[in-house]
This record gives sequence, C-alpha cells and structure tokens, in this order.
Amino acid sequence: MSKSFDDLLKQVNACSKKKVSVAVAQDKPVLEAIKLAKERGIADAILVGDEEKIKEIAAEIDMNLADFEVINEPDVQEAALKAVSLVHDKKADMYMKGIIDTKSFLKSILNKEVGLRTGKPLSHVAVFELENIDHLLFLTDVAFIPYPSLEDKVNIIRNTVEVCHACGLPNPKVAPLAAVEVVNPKMECTVEAETLTNMNREGEITGCIVDGPLSLDLAIDPEAAQHKGATGRTIVGDADVLLFPDIHAGNLVYKCLVHTTKFKNGCILTGTSAPAILTSRSDSTETKVNSIALAAIVAEALGK
Amino acid sequence: MSKSFDDLLKQVNACSKKKVSVAVAQDKPVLEAIKLAKERGIADAILVGDEEKIKEIAAEIDMNLADFEVINEPDVQEAALKAVSLVHDKKADMYMKGIIDTKSFLKSILNKEVGLRTGKPLSHVAVFELENIDHLLFLTDVAFIPYPSLEDKVNIIRNTVEVCHACGLPNPKVAPLAAVEVVNPKMECTVEAETLTNMNREGEITGCIVDGPLSLDLAIDPEAAQHKGATGRTIVGDADVLLFPDIHAGNLVYKCLVHTTKFKNGCILTGTSAPAILTSRSDSTETKVNSIALAAIVAEALGK
Repeated sequence: MSKSFDDLLKQVNACSKKKVSVAVAQDKPVLEAIKLAKERGIADAILVGDEEKIKEIAAEIDMNLADFEVINEPDVQEAALKAVSLVHDKKADMYMKGIIDTKSFLKSILNKEVGLRTGKPLSHVAVFELENIDHLLFLTDVAFIPYPSLEDKVNIIRNTVEVCHACGLPNPKVAPLAAVEVVNPKMECTVEAETLTNMNREGEITGCIVDGPLSLDLAIDPEAAQHKGATGRTIVGDADVLLFPDIHAGNLVYKCLVHTTKFKNGCILTGTSAPAILTSRSDSTETKVNSIALAAIVAEALGK
Repeated sequence: MSKSFDDLLKQVNACSKKKVSVAVAQDKPVLEAIKLAKERGIADAILVGDEEKIKEIAAEIDMNLADFEVINEPDVQEAALKAVSLVHDKKADMYMKGIIDTKSFLKSILNKEVGLRTGKPLSHVAVFELENIDHLLFLTDVAFIPYPSLEDKVNIIRNTVEVCHACGLPNPKVAPLAAVEVVNPKMECTVEAETLTNMNREGEITGCIVDGPLSLDLAIDPEAAQHKGATGRTIVGDADVLLFPDIHAGNLVYKCLVHTTKFKNGCILTGTSAPAILTSRSDSTETKVNSIALAAIVAEALGK
C-alpha cells in the first residue's frame, strides 16, 4: 500500500516501464518534468509537437532528445489528435497536456475515433501527502465537474476508488464532505452524502467504505473526531478520499493546500481508458513528476 | 497596521483594558484561555455560571479567582442572559461562549431586551496568519451563514471590513472567491462576485476594494497571479479578505488550515453591538486567546 509519494515512486519502479504521450510538447515546464521523470525511471515519453521548438527548449534545459521519440506536428489540434491516438492504439500508456488549452486537450480525449472515452464520465483526482497524516489523501473533484449531481458523485467515487485500488488501498474510506456532520434537509449536499452512504451499505457503490456527511475535522483528524464523540461512524479521522460538495469548495481547498503549504501532491484525470495528466502552469516540476508517477500506477492497474 | 497576531497583541496592550463576560463559564478549556488572556494583559473577565464548578476547575488549573468577578447562576439559560446583559449594559466589552450549546448562546445574543442586536445581520470572521503571507487574512463566512444571498454577502463584507479597520487596515482588499476567475453565468457565485465588485466601484460598498471573482491562487499568491497575467485587476495575490461562495467552501478551507497546518488563528462573531467569541471545543488555548485579543481590538474600535 502506497502511503507517500516515495512509496508511489517505488511502486512505479516495480511496474513495467510506462510511456507518456505528450500533446503539443514544446513547453519548457512540461519538458523539464518529462526529463526528470525519465531520469528517475518513472516513464519514457513520445513528444508530439513542433520539433524545431522542442529542440530549442531541449537545448536550453540540457535534455538529450535521443532518449525520446519526437513526432513533428506543428499544428496544435493535429498534434493533440496524433498524441492521443498513440495512447488509444496502446503505443503509449498515458496522455499528457503540453502547451495546448484545456478545452482542446479535453476535446482530443473525447474524440470518438482516436480518443480515450470509456462511456464513463471523466473526473479529476488530486493526491496529497500531508505532514500530519500518515497516508495519502485523494481529493475529488477539485477541477472538472462544477456542480456534481448525485449520479455524478457516484461516478466520481467509482473513478477515484479505482485510483486508490491502483495505489494499493483495497478498501478506501470515502468521506462526502460538508460544513457539518449531520444531515440537514436545507443543505442538499448533506442529504446526498447520506444517500451515498446508504448506497454503499446496500452494495450499489463497492470497493470502498462511504460515510457522510462529514466535516473536514471528523474526516481527517482522529483526535478531533474522538473529541467530538464520533459514535456509530465508520470514518473517525481516517478518510482516504475527500469528496467535495462542488467545484468551488474542492478547488478552494486544493489551492489553499498548494499555495499556503509545501505538501507534496499530484493529480490526474480519470474515467478515461488511460490516465490523462493535465497539470497547471503554476504547478512545480515536482508536482508534474508526481502526476506522471500516479498516472503510471493507474496505467499499470488498467493494463491488468 | 496589525500584520500578525503579535502585532494584534501589541495593539491590544495599547488599548484601555477590556473585560469579557463569559456565559456558563464552568468549562476548563475556556477558563484556561481566560486565565492566559488575563496573564498576558489582554482582557479581564466576569465569569457567569455555576460558582461551585468554576471554583473546582479554577483549583485544577491553578487559576486565582480573586483576579476575576464571579457571578453565581447555575441555570444555563439564565447564566447566558445575565452574561450578555453585562455586555449590553456596558459592564463588559465582549461576550464569550462557555459550556453552552451554540443555539442557546446565539439566542442570548439576539435577545431583544438584554442582547447585542444592532439590526445588522450577524456574520463570522476567522483571522489567519499564514507562513508565506506577510499580512493577516480574514476568512468569511466559514461558520455562520449557510448559503449567503447577494444581500448577505454585502453585509458580510461590511461586517468584516469593520474588523479590518479595527485592526488598522484602512482599505482592505476583498476577494469574492470561486473555483475560477472569470464570470460564468452558470456559476451564480461568479456573477455575484462581479456584482459586488461593481457595487464597490459605484460606492455602494465602501472602505475597501472588492475584486472578483477570483480563484484562491490569484487572491493570495502574488507569484501565481503575475504568472497567470492578472491584467486589469486590483487584487494581484494581495487580498486581505477572502469571501467564500458558501459555508461549505468556507468551512472546508478553514478546517483544512486548522487541521493540516499550525498557522495561528482566531475568530469572532460580528454584526453585534459588541464582539462575541464562540470558539470551538477543538480550538487550542492559543486560538481562544487570539480570539479574545481580536474581540478586544474590535471592542475598542466600536467604543470610539
């Protein structure tokens, strides 16, 4: 069971070597991450994009392009389609966003002929290693689905639980979060949290334990949970997955962690036939490499 | 201008000595905070509650009751009414929750004869001193108003701006937050953020600068804000006040900071004729003392 990003890297090194296909690869921060991922034995890469520009950046960052396959396609949309088709055709294991806008990147993922559709809705998961928590935390959805319906939340849980399983957590604890830990009919997300908990008990959501609604302290702080007397709960400060009521709550917590702490993190897009990596420009190289590692682990699990 | 809790404590010491009236004071964590606040010269206190039990706890924590006024009222509701009336009658400057449920405590605040009503709606503000931010951050509303309407948000801003002014910030920057920094008609909170910004430009919300919608990185991280090219914005990673779209987003961010970091914080209830302190059982003594200090500063400003 991977309890830290160091564990995840060890888990990656035990897998068969994975290959990431980069859409519109002529981006310095992305190539820096690809270079580091290669050096650490995390993943090989196929770089699809403007070869001239890729060469220029590679020279700048002392990256030996002989170690990588480069496919010249200066047109942005065509480069994305080519890059995603390599994953679709199993010539690569993961798909990564280069210097292309998110909308066009997602369009390539959803392409009916060469994309990564599975019929399942896509969702995003951000994985964090916090200082005072002895296991990884999976935050979802902090970037993709604005106002998830109950059905969306079921799918988000299923997508995220697959990622947990890939990371070696056989039965992750999923906490549907709210400001409060009791059901309040005036707060839709607390009602839905209870419904999700019941669906889990009745076997409609499997491979995990769902217990909500939960406030964040009861979800992640065992001391606070015990202090408040969390009787009859299956999660007592030991949640693995934090399910947010909507994208505002999720994104604000995510950015709070990224911009006020130094905790390690990485994220991927799930619900696709192969994991997709769409990091933000402001993510550190370390975060991008963590995301590639996470994608490699999920790719390994999907391949089994 | 107070930029840290140390600054706030210095500011308190420069004020005339304030007195806090504690409702149902027979609570060990609350008395520990009251004792420490007295020792540090932050505030004196009147302890209203079960005198026998107060004496027992005082003995336990080595607290000299000769330093405090104690009013014996074993009945919980009566003790709250007595304690709040002391503030109402200006015999104390701030009102603090002891071992009484939040609902009854709020009921005493809203009491028409002896309470602290002003006609303004109440709201909550949490103040944080973050490691990599060189000024205090005012988070609102993370605990009181579940789904604030536009009108509620105007009032929340007004209440919070008063607290900022009391802390010596003449023109705080207020960021109405969302997951995104652009107006999206499908996301009500982004539309309201724009309206609040316009109301500020048109002079309907004064004493501050409002600029939203803003994502959290653009609000608090100058580097990220510049990286993303925040042109035409008045807030570039230098927000003082973070206005949350709803209580779930606010409370989850607040608890994320409290339970995953060691950043100093304190909070008070505002919109009352005198500041009210209702800390949570899981708050540290330090946090409770910070809240008393913050209340003292606001009491000083309200008294002018």
